[in-house]
Amino acid sequence: MEITSLNNEIVKEYSKLQQKKYRKESGKFLLEGYKAVKEALDFGIELEKIFVKKNKLNEYDFDKGLVIETNSAVLKKLSTTENAPSIVAVGIQKKYDKKLFKNMKKVVLLENIKDCGNLGTIIRSSCAFGSDGIVLYGDSVDLYNPKSVRASVGNLWKIPVIHIVDFQELQDLFGNFSRISTLPLSNNYLKQFKPDYPILLMFGSEADGLSEDLKNFATDSVKIEMNKNVESLNLATSVSVILYQIFEK
Amino acid sequence: MEITSLNNEIVKEYSKLQQKKYRKESGKFLLEGYKAVKEALDFGIELEKIFVKKNKLNEYDFDKGLVIETNSAVLKKLSTTENAPSIVAVGIQKKYDKKLFKNMKKVVLLENIKDCGNLGTIIRSSCAFGSDGIVLYGDSVDLYNPKSVRASVGNLWKIPVIHIVDFQELQDLFGNFSRISTLPLSNNYLKQFKPDYPILLMFGSEADGLSEDLKNFATDSVKIEMNKNVESLNLATSVSVILYQIFEK
Repeated sequence: MEITSLNNEIVKEYSKLQQKKYRKESGKFLLEGYKAVKEALDFGIELEKIFVKKNKLNEYDFDKGLVIETNSAVLKKLSTTENAPSIVAVGIQKKYDKKLFKNMKKVVLLENIKDCGNLGTIIRSSCAFGSDGIVLYGDSVDLYNPKSVRASVGNLWKIPVIHIVDFQELQDLFGNFSRISTLPLSNNYLKQFKPDYPILLMFGSEADGLSEDLKNFATDSVKIEMNKNVESLNLATSVSVILYQIFEK
Repeated sequence: MEITSLNNEIVKEYSKLQQKKYRKESGKFLLEGYKAVKEALDFGIELEKIFVKKNKLNEYDFDKGLVIETNSAVLKKLSTTENAPSIVAVGIQKKYDKKLFKNMKKVVLLENIKDCGNLGTIIRSSCAFGSDGIVLYGDSVDLYNPKSVRASVGNLWKIPVIHIVDFQELQDLFGNFSRISTLPLSNNYLKQFKPDYPILLMFGSEADGLSEDLKNFATDSVKIEMNKNVESLNLATSVSVILYQIFEK
């Protein structure tokens, strides 16, 4: 199959997946670049279509039934980067059973996270430092935003991520966890911190920190040692430093 | 003074500071938002002009000689964010004497760093975890890029940063330092790492890692413990985790 027109209905339809609303409605998302597509396939992510630049077609061995030959203009329309990649794929979002999380040992919770780059970086570090799953709590950025997908650098497929909006649901899933709030005003320094498992590590949003609900839900708190003249750390940095510190403990 | 036209020569001239070339030629840069401007002033950064939205004028107590009253259109032209802030200032870049670095205890070196967000985050973490200075080695992103300034969240003024291009100059400054390369193939795990001071912690670029020159320049190496199925960490994450680990040691 070959498509070269920007006005083609299939192209118009898929390019809408750059918007959160259409990703949510369809349960699909966009993947940019050969490496990202290859890794997703290797991890069993189902792909619906793979748009490949015509002169690159022979370099890859994708299932021919999925491939659409195309040109740079179409690829640029489908992608969100300045320089269009030679491959853009349409994938099916992976949904996880929330009950899975009941049996995990180390879970990261992010409340109202707003920055896609942060989310991708946190996914990467969570995989690196042995977190078993991630909970996006409240009104968070979309996991399948192309920027999050890029910043996760092929790790998005390696870790279950779920959305939870309802506080009651959070209580039901993590009632028997040790629930740690990360607070600048905590009295417990990270280097002295002894984790109890299963553990839920809770991080507030970039702008507002943790909500009162989650502060009250916490069974304990921790803070990262740092110089007093610095107000706070980048969110992905905080998550990474804490996960590293308790990695393999 | 009041300026409301986008065609005003002063506005046209200053908006060029969004480009690296003009920042380099002029030694000036742009600062966006009240908090960033206030912090820069508190840290003694010299400001040349402060553009303030007319109806916000009474909220601030800036030196009247510096203030230019203006409107949203001009502020939008001067700023690089989607929603124009109500203040944009033009500052004078701070230059540090490279010899300062000879007497430091803990220095971070970044080779060919390309991502402004990473650079800002590294500056923030370096201040938080007690690094004394940062060396941008080779062909690196500009420190005064508005994105770097934003991602440093008011910490850019707290730490000396220098550019070095010449390898000989690096040798002259850090010849007597313990020079640590951060390498995935190192045999030394970070948690067992015993730093010797003064120390130069060397990090390669996002895409290519450390050059052969710097690998050879190193007196020792270190790696961050992590799961084998993850290829690498985000650069700012690596720097932060290592700095935290040796913080207050």
